[in-house]
Amino acid sequence: MIDIERLHTNARMSKIVRHGGLVYLCGQTANASASAHEGITAQTYEALSRVEALLAEAGSDRRRILSATIYLNNIDDFAAMNAVWETWIKPGTAPARTTVEAKLASANLLFEVSVVASVA
Amino acid sequence: MIDIERLHTNARMSKIVRHGGLVYLCGQTANASASAHEGITAQTYEALSRVEALLAEAGSDRRRILSATIYLNNIDDFAAMNAVWETWIKPGTAPARTTVEAKLASANLLFEVSVVASVA
Amino acid sequence: MIDIERLHTNARMSKIVRHGGLVYLCGQTANASASAHEGITAQTYEALSRVEALLAEAGSDRRRILSATIYLNNIDDFAAMNAVWETWIKPGTAPARTTVEAKLASANLLFEVSVVASVA
Repeated sequence: MIDIERLHTNARMSKIVRHGGLVYLCGQTANASASAHEGITAQTYEALSRVEALLAEAGSDRRRILSATIYLNNIDDFAAMNAVWETWIKPGTAPARTTVEAKLASANLLFEVSVVASVA
Repeated sequence: MIDIERLHTNARMSKIVRHGGLVYLCGQTANASASAHEGITAQTYEALSRVEALLAEAGSDRRRILSATIYLNNIDDFAAMNAVWETWIKPGTAPARTTVEAKLASANLLFEVSVVASVA
Repeated sequence: MIDIERLHTNARMSKIVRHGGLVYLCGQTANASASAHEGITAQTYEALSRVEALLAEAGSDRRRILSATIYLNNIDDFAAMNAVWETWIKPGTAPARTTVEAKLASANLLFEVSVVASVA
């Protein structure tokens, strides 16, 4: 199974899984405890910063995201989340995306994103 | 990054992303404003018609969908959605599928589907 | 389309779709009728046993799961689900994972998981 590379692996999940030229990240959120004091804007920034750091570690970057699934604790945050997302995405490189409302693992969390990217 | 092809790209997302023999579509729904007057049957038809048009543009088609994730605003629409879905899928070509309930970006929207397909 | 292999295909979905070295499974749950009498622990075990059987049939196994999306009827079951999940995953092989709350197709169902794995 040398063809599957994992990074930051614990008993539950790997933050990064690489296989066949793709990288799969575990769902990224803001820090669960800090998020009690953060609104959707700060949480989206923080989660996307984590995505960027993990993609860099995997040899990819935000311009190589193929598909993103976004979960919002409250779909009313759609516009505020998009305002952050659209400044984060580099022009001309936006991925396929789906956004739905869902409660997340911690009640404080307002934003989670799951991405698949290609490795450079 | 010439290996990633995107179509209908704006600041937020691409409707079509092609990479490595796969095509990723952004979540497809009925038209958000028209959907105020449409029930689950009409919305499912309309969203699947959009999927079909985008897959054709990407060089794929409904028989080449590998995986589909369906989000219903109301899980009670499961049977009515399936009645449309099962006539739309060509016999013997049904993808892996997961269906859950989730509120969608507009309160009028009852159905959204995210698909990954292979390119012919 | 000989490059897409499907197993357990009906009008709605295929339980297994293989393409390009990957296997996509349809969302796995406990048995919908039996689940009325089962809590989250039993349902998680049962669904993961089904995942394992389908992966074996596809020429893969739990150590080759790349990405998993878990849907819980009640996010308060997160810890109890993880207790089962973490004994099921073989050390060092945990996939990328995302877990959210969502109502599932039957009101009795508490756990559903959608996986993508590599084929050995």
